[in-house]
Amino acid sequence: MEEYIVRPVGVVRSAIMDGADAPKQGALTDQEAEVVVDPAYLVALDGLAERVRTGSSRIIVLCWMHGADRARLHVHPRGKEHLPLRGVFSTRSPHRPNPVSLHTVTLLAVDGNVLRIRGMDAVDGTPVVDIKPHSSDLDG
Amino acid sequence: MEEYIVRPVGVVRSAIMDGADAPKQGALTDQEAEVVVDPAYLVALDGLAERVRTGSSRIIVLCWMHGADRARLHVHPRGKEHLPLRGVFSTRSPHRPNPVSLHTVTLLAVDGNVLRIRGMDAVDGTPVVDIKPHSSDLDG
Repeated sequence: MEEYIVRPVGVVRSAIMDGADAPKQGALTDQEAEVVVDPAYLVALDGLAERVRTGSSRIIVLCWMHGADRARLHVHPRGKEHLPLRGVFSTRSPHRPNPVSLHTVTLLAVDGNVLRIRGMDAVDGTPVVDIKPHSSDLDG
Repeated sequence: MEEYIVRPVGVVRSAIMDGADAPKQGALTDQEAEVVVDPAYLVALDGLAERVRTGSSRIIVLCWMHGADRARLHVHPRGKEHLPLRGVFSTRSPHRPNPVSLHTVTLLAVDGNVLRIRGMDAVDGTPVVDIKPHSSDLDG
């Protein structure tokens, strides 16, 4: 099958410095973090600030988990070795063939090319692949 | 920034033959479709069939929208030209720098390397990037 190239559009800035610090069910964290968008993509943010003002402030950030082991197809769920091995497509493990992670977070503010967010569990420096508005109808 | 290579793990088989047929808010469709997983990734599906049996049958399928215009940063929402242009990161347009789409669907059955699903609006032949269990806590 054909291959495709991901060119990151930004980076996560967060207080989480390595995977061991990251909460396993991290969307539940209250910690604030930032997505710093490459200025080349600044106009792609048009309309996001308005979502904050109108209260539709849930967004989905897709990241590339660059530390992942792409060859691993079986994992212990949540890294707990006493749990039986499962296929990675039935878990949220970072280890998977295409390590795209999904973070549904609250957008607090847009300041130029910087998004301030709450609920992000990605490690500092994680490349950002895409940003989408969350929709309860589509994603709930 | 570093680039990354996406190697599709499967393909969508669906009755939707081109973008013009695709429902704009397609997750609301009742149409059945399939994800045919490359047999090389078969073991990564372990545990998904059990989710069907236990009723936790919502999954997220990430696709690569290979027909997208990756250079387009502004779009008319839902293709409606009377609506003002918006940045693609504030819309669900397929046109975006990294055209990864997100489909929250219902898994009906797992038959070997074929997932039968409901609620998929991707066009027939769309490459599949990843499959994840949906979590109301993380994704709701």
